[in-house]
Amino acid sequence: DCLSESTQERCPVNFPVAVVLPAAGSGERTGLSTPKQFCRILGRPLISYTIHAFERVCWIDNIVVVVAKESHDMMADILHKYNHTKVKIVEGGPTRHRSIFNGLLAFSEPGVGPKLQKPKVVIIHDAVRPFLEEDFLLKITLAAKEQGASGAVRPLVSTVVAATTGGCLDYSLERAKYRASETPQAFIYDIIYQAYQQCSEAEFQFGTECLDLALQHCGTRAQLIEGPPTLWKVTHKQDLASAEAVIKESLSQSACIISGECTETQNLSIWMKNCLTAAGMRVDAIPNTERSMTLSASRNVIKLSVNSSDFVEIREMMKRCEESKDFLLYPVIILWVFLNVSDQVSLRQENDEASTIMNLAEEAKKINIFLYCVQLRYSKVSTEWERTVNRLCQLTMALIRDRNAAFTGQMLQA
Amino acid sequence: DCLSESTQERCPVNFPVAVVLPAAGSGERTGLSTPKQFCRILGRPLISYTIHAFERVCWIDNIVVVVAKESHDMMADILHKYNHTKVKIVEGGPTRHRSIFNGLLAFSEPGVGPKLQKPKVVIIHDAVRPFLEEDFLLKITLAAKEQGASGAVRPLVSTVVAATTGGCLDYSLERAKYRASETPQAFIYDIIYQAYQQCSEAEFQFGTECLDLALQHCGTRAQLIEGPPTLWKVTHKQDLASAEAVIKESLSQSACIISGECTETQNLSIWMKNCLTAAGMRVDAIPNTERSMTLSASRNVIKLSVNSSDFVEIREMMKRCEESKDFLLYPVIILWVFLNVSDQVSLRQENDEASTIMNLAEEAKKINIFLYCVQLRYSKVSTEWERTVNRLCQLTMALIRDRNAAFTGQMLQA
Ligand SMILES: [Mg+2]
Ligand SMILES: [Mg+2]
Repeated sequence: DCLSESTQERCPVNFPVAVVLPAAGSGERTGLSTPKQFCRILGRPLISYTIHAFERVCWIDNIVVVVAKESHDMMADILHKYNHTKVKIVEGGPTRHRSIFNGLLAFSEPGVGPKLQKPKVVIIHDAVRPFLEEDFLLKITLAAKEQGASGAVRPLVSTVVAATTGGCLDYSLERAKYRASETPQAFIYDIIYQAYQQCSEAEFQFGTECLDLALQHCGTRAQLIEGPPTLWKVTHKQDLASAEAVIKESLSQSACIISGECTETQNLSIWMKNCLTAAGMRVDAIPNTERSMTLSASRNVIKLSVNSSDFVEIREMMKRCEESKDFLLYPVIILWVFLNVSDQVSLRQENDEASTIMNLAEEAKKINIFLYCVQLRYSKVSTEWERTVNRLCQLTMALIRDRNAAFTGQMLQA
Repeated sequence: DCLSESTQERCPVNFPVAVVLPAAGSGERTGLSTPKQFCRILGRPLISYTIHAFERVCWIDNIVVVVAKESHDMMADILHKYNHTKVKIVEGGPTRHRSIFNGLLAFSEPGVGPKLQKPKVVIIHDAVRPFLEEDFLLKITLAAKEQGASGAVRPLVSTVVAATTGGCLDYSLERAKYRASETPQAFIYDIIYQAYQQCSEAEFQFGTECLDLALQHCGTRAQLIEGPPTLWKVTHKQDLASAEAVIKESLSQSACIISGECTETQNLSIWMKNCLTAAGMRVDAIPNTERSMTLSASRNVIKLSVNSSDFVEIREMMKRCEESKDFLLYPVIILWVFLNVSDQVSLRQENDEASTIMNLAEEAKKINIFLYCVQLRYSKVSTEWERTVNRLCQLTMALIRDRNAAFTGQMLQA
């Protein structure tokens, strides 16, 4: 799971490890005005997801992000807003290789501010590949420590062809013999540093592969390690939608139902739990919010109420969420389900309630909580009741999977 | 625009052209149980989008889809449901090349049923690349006619590396010299047919490139043509989300507001038009639905009403939509906006209306119309009214872009 927190167990790495993230590119290929590393996914810039993937790993000490001069302030704001504390910003160069070298220099040259500890192994990674798992980072890091260099590879998706000068097919490569070189790549710091120091101007400008530089200048043959498909790179505009879908899916795996104390909502809770579980969700049901419960741990909370609404508990949840440091990392959903067991509600009261909820949802949105409401009416006719509960579960899953900020504060009907 | 209909102008191709779509693969890479060509996007199988992209081109005569034996009936259902009339199903072989050859044989061997006309040029394309524009197909086709073969290429996204037997970096290719070979590819029929007839068993099993077969067996050097980024292939599970996003975006470019005859809704129509236009939509506003108006042409209809609701017009629209042959190709949105200028509505009436709308939306969904409702209350306070209209436009855009079947029949509040 790309969003899980790193374990607090014994650290598997006993040497210093740092990361360089080149992010100075302009990302023409997305066809967007914002460089893709700064495009927002669920409100948060893509690069913050990538940073978080490294930052949560206990054995990674420092992360250097290399950005264009004009992006420095925006990057600083991102670090502050999302509480990224292991990160230092370095100014990029005119090419990717210059930028990476600038990043490496942050560990060795006396600069402004506190100097970073020189790592034994440095990981170089594209800022636009946000989905990284700790175990793969560990593989890459240990291989680099042993062999001097390592890099992720993936099978080729297309056949690679060479063209004649006339633009015709010259020959095609035997697909099985080749791999696509991806990132992360890792190096013993001294090796990649030395390779860059010996780089020619032409290599700085046109070279594409760090692995190749280590081979050419230091005779280090990188170990190639088959990476998971999740390493894929946000290259084109439509890839942002993919990344969003991957993140939304990982946020939709589980939910927590707060059933309340009364029989009606506790029964509804059992129905919902069965229905959502059958659809593949992990569901916990508890009678009341616990003091220890953090909303950022259970990212989808379903609160069941009968008739009149209890705003105190919702405000309490919001407060606890705001107190946690990482509330801005992922939007949390509170789905408030109103079970009407009678129809003695006057229109005026409903209108008042609707606008109170709308205002509360506006407040919640500011702290990255999406509050939605669903109303349903209890029916003694079992087929009708079953249909209503099914519709409630359909809406629940759609709201959780969709995480659409535009529908917060709405009162839907199941 | 990947969804635009082909023009009815003078045909730019005066020789017979056919298409072979190999779709017999099992698509392990998506990690889904359904082969990716049959995965649904907005309810419709991916392969139907690809077929439609060819079928709408007037100068393409026949499309042969090659599917695994066990998929035959499902494919036949798809052709029938989505009214694909130019398509013939052929049974696949054990490899991609066998499947393509089976497809080609449909034009030359006496089979069951009516024989297909032998084309001058045959286009071979992956069923999982749904985004094809007519002008690129024309380029590929004309180049094949002239040169015997042609194929789409794209720049390499990653560096390509060769590994030693020990799994280390052997060397990396100079990226600028190579291209990724994609589809569509096109061939003079007799050339690719002859190439396959001369194929060895090993080539049938391990060969990846049709272009290469034409070169090896017929000495035909294919012309390589740089394709647009939209040619990308649905390979992994997350690519389905990309494809959906691309389709949804192209369906969200424009809307038609039906303002009604009264002053209040006509004013609201002007406000909405300005707001949606500023957000990048093309918006037409007309007072009433016209007889000639087809919902599938203007895929997003916004109907404005004052207070009590006029179900007759909605039913009329639904009927016209169902009469058009292609209503299942893309879901159409009807957004029904209720402007309340007074608050003399009793709760009972509102409840009745809500369930009538919910039922109507269920009916509409069956013919691929997504009916949503938004209520708003007129305010004489101009700042408040402005805020309400803005919220209405936010909801409108979210509903149109999202095209979420789960929220149909809901009454949202602006
Ligand atoms: Mg590299
Ligand atoms: Mg091929």
